[in-house]
Amino acid sequence: MSPTSISRRGLLGAAGTGTLTAAGTLLAAPGVASAETTSGNLPSTVDTVVVGAGISGLVAARQIARAGRSVLVLEARDRVGGRVLNHTLANGSVIESGGAFVGPTQDHILALAAELGVQTFKEYAQGDNVYISGSITMRYTGTVPPDPTILADAANLQLQLDTLSKQVPVDAPWTAAKAAEWDAKSVDNWIKENTVNPATANLLLCYLQPCFGTDPREMSLLYLLWYIATAGDETTPGTFERSAGTSGGAQDSRVIGGSQLIPLRLAAQLGDIVALKAPVRKIEQTADSVTVTSDRGQVRASRVIVAVPPPLAAKIDWYPLLPPLHLELLQRLPMGALMKCDAVYNRPFWRDAGLSGMALIDSGPVRATFDNSPPDAGVGVLMAFIGGSTWRDWGNRPADERQTAVLQAFAEIVGPQALTPIDYVEHDWTHERWSTGAPTSVAAPGVIYSYGAQIRQPVARVHWAGTETATYWSGYMDGAVRAGERAAQEVIALL
Amino acid sequence: MSPTSISRRGLLGAAGTGTLTAAGTLLAAPGVASAETTSGNLPSTVDTVVVGAGISGLVAARQIARAGRSVLVLEARDRVGGRVLNHTLANGSVIESGGAFVGPTQDHILALAAELGVQTFKEYAQGDNVYISGSITMRYTGTVPPDPTILADAANLQLQLDTLSKQVPVDAPWTAAKAAEWDAKSVDNWIKENTVNPATANLLLCYLQPCFGTDPREMSLLYLLWYIATAGDETTPGTFERSAGTSGGAQDSRVIGGSQLIPLRLAAQLGDIVALKAPVRKIEQTADSVTVTSDRGQVRASRVIVAVPPPLAAKIDWYPLLPPLHLELLQRLPMGALMKCDAVYNRPFWRDAGLSGMALIDSGPVRATFDNSPPDAGVGVLMAFIGGSTWRDWGNRPADERQTAVLQAFAEIVGPQALTPIDYVEHDWTHERWSTGAPTSVAAPGVIYSYGAQIRQPVARVHWAGTETATYWSGYMDGAVRAGERAAQEVIALL
Repeated sequence: MSPTSISRRGLLGAAGTGTLTAAGTLLAAPGVASAETTSGNLPSTVDTVVVGAGISGLVAARQIARAGRSVLVLEARDRVGGRVLNHTLANGSVIESGGAFVGPTQDHILALAAELGVQTFKEYAQGDNVYISGSITMRYTGTVPPDPTILADAANLQLQLDTLSKQVPVDAPWTAAKAAEWDAKSVDNWIKENTVNPATANLLLCYLQPCFGTDPREMSLLYLLWYIATAGDETTPGTFERSAGTSGGAQDSRVIGGSQLIPLRLAAQLGDIVALKAPVRKIEQTADSVTVTSDRGQVRASRVIVAVPPPLAAKIDWYPLLPPLHLELLQRLPMGALMKCDAVYNRPFWRDAGLSGMALIDSGPVRATFDNSPPDAGVGVLMAFIGGSTWRDWGNRPADERQTAVLQAFAEIVGPQALTPIDYVEHDWTHERWSTGAPTSVAAPGVIYSYGAQIRQPVARVHWAGTETATYWSGYMDGAVRAGERAAQEVIALL
Repeated sequence: MSPTSISRRGLLGAAGTGTLTAAGTLLAAPGVASAETTSGNLPSTVDTVVVGAGISGLVAARQIARAGRSVLVLEARDRVGGRVLNHTLANGSVIESGGAFVGPTQDHILALAAELGVQTFKEYAQGDNVYISGSITMRYTGTVPPDPTILADAANLQLQLDTLSKQVPVDAPWTAAKAAEWDAKSVDNWIKENTVNPATANLLLCYLQPCFGTDPREMSLLYLLWYIATAGDETTPGTFERSAGTSGGAQDSRVIGGSQLIPLRLAAQLGDIVALKAPVRKIEQTADSVTVTSDRGQVRASRVIVAVPPPLAAKIDWYPLLPPLHLELLQRLPMGALMKCDAVYNRPFWRDAGLSGMALIDSGPVRATFDNSPPDAGVGVLMAFIGGSTWRDWGNRPADERQTAVLQAFAEIVGPQALTPIDYVEHDWTHERWSTGAPTSVAAPGVIYSYGAQIRQPVARVHWAGTETATYWSGYMDGAVRAGERAAQEVIALL
């Protein structure tokens, strides 16, 4: 219940932008210029403060506003979207520097996109993929390359990942019958115990580094099994294929106009409910209310939803201190290390050669590539993920040296034309102060079993959103939506 | 070289307390009342700011002051000592709530104590220790109980720990020939691969939980091997026995008057060079200087030494952002979870029965105990560590329930007299905002191999101290001294 001194209407009445009525009807047309504030006074009291204007925080805020409660979103950056960020090319086409893909069973992000008038298109996946491992170069289709030297290993690993992940409850992986055993093992250890050919481990690296920005050595087997289990929905169990795959998988489709359209349109609906350049420094709880201190002032609320990555939640000064079990968890969920490199060409010339643009390579700066061309193929874009140990090696070299190596890798995949792009764009998420890495936080051995149960536990008046707290598609935009919705429901029930 | 605008004398001339001359001669007698400030103006410029008034920061500050440079220590708490904290009992005797033990090869803390007029005494280790495992209860002497069911396992583990740790360079464990392999493995996994009887793993838990506040599941094998390697000095290789042992080991001796006497006397020498209640929020570097913002204002310096636990260093707002490799490391060094429980009796009655007060127990809230009586045995004190999963289980229960269980465990060890102490004292380091855990930060699999090389790398004008950065006795008071000395040397050479 909110304290009587906290307005139940707050900004919704006072904002004057007319973007959202108290009853929750959306008035703003999709694409309307957003009215977030970057300066000026904030309200002194609202029903709920949301920390972070990524998709999760914005979804939570909208749901609370629709319930007729006043809400304020405090965002550290001068933009919304968090780990979702568009980049406009010279010809006006938009590509993504951050989270981009959507796919089947990601019904929450897909429904949100549709509601916002944001359309999707199929990721280009025609023709052959390319697999380069040692002396082997082969074209193939599907998710797993049919390299005869690793086929048995790979099939066995995939079968085990699917079988074991079904024993992991998505909302409580720490309760799996073998949780203690699986959480004591790094993925690297497990792979080595279950493979004959070391090249198989390299192949799995091509999946793990882009997906997690992390090497198998740093990752708990229980965490990986849980992550695969979440690659589904309430009626469709997660599988490795759906988690790793393109057509029919997590990389099935992209957003026309770029995925950041979704948070941009959400923010436009919310108007001056969204305060930018307002990093939250302190959260103080009393029995009656919670006070949030940002660089733009203090706001008192009945409830707070924290929708930022775990390491950033740990940075906030908590009064009283978070319960130790919770604080210890937040200390143990570091972000992956990931960058994206996009080379732009006049056209996606590889398609002529019957190539999809997708590739897996076991050495050099590039482990996995995708065709990142806009839907009209007005230009051709090849995109590479550089994550984990590959990022540590290549992400810290001079930009021109890295670019040369990336383009050489692209040339190995699609031919020498790749060496002469018309543009080249990089985005390294480890350089982002308000993300500190991407795509998601990753649990080392021991973390989920010991501390995982805290992940969604409200702490008095504080609730938790963000894709890391999702029980389906954690680490993805869909998980961000689901987590925002769930946190909003918690808060609305208590306001 | 310091910018000319930054005073080379600074506080040393201006302070007016006369505790330390510019030439570095100590004038204050040991034990003099400290003159740290808790309010009032800080200087606007000094040669070096030290963040954190634990032993490491105070040692660094004193060394810089002795070199004739001005220095200011900014401490978040209203006291000095960090994880080293005295507690005075009703009869005036002093026990430690934090770091307490010293031992052979810890020459730096021992030399510092001697210089400060602080004396040590042998930890009581006469008579028999007690070992309780399942249905076995036995008295024994030495470090490893001769339980016949685990003797072969334990001897093998100890031999391997000693053998393998000698292959780990203390200053660069990531360069060990098998670093990649060892860092991919949790200690739990390694123990299971190398033991027949599961009770052996329980025994190792009795060492690991007090030493690290962490379970073997959460800890990299490479980290443990490195930690053992650091339990020595430049001429004496570390061993498991020295790391785990009492007489002749890490728990050989204690400090008369309590270990916090050391930082208290250091602070008294430094006088108003030490500013309390001054948590550091922001560190901004330019080409010419570095500006440190604390709750007591801004100070500009030529160099900064950060001497706080890694999770707290990660909380500081860094401008520019720390190099990503460094930031990723700081995100991956969480603190252990540890509390100390002391029961106080009229006298150490267990000594009459030929018991040392030391015990290892494989269940319940207490895994390891020590005789924590003051040197005059004016009262008797039994002390238990509760760490890792035992802390997660028992540290979060009501205090009276925990106390009852701890006293029952003590009674199992030394008899029913233990049930009726005259006093009972607990200290849980996970509740400490400016430590967030104890005794040290612990690396999960993958961290040291991937990010460890950053640990002491200066970042422009910022240098790193704190026991976590030590190459001998990391995690101990001796490591704190060594790290402070090394960081001070780095800075002095550059001022």
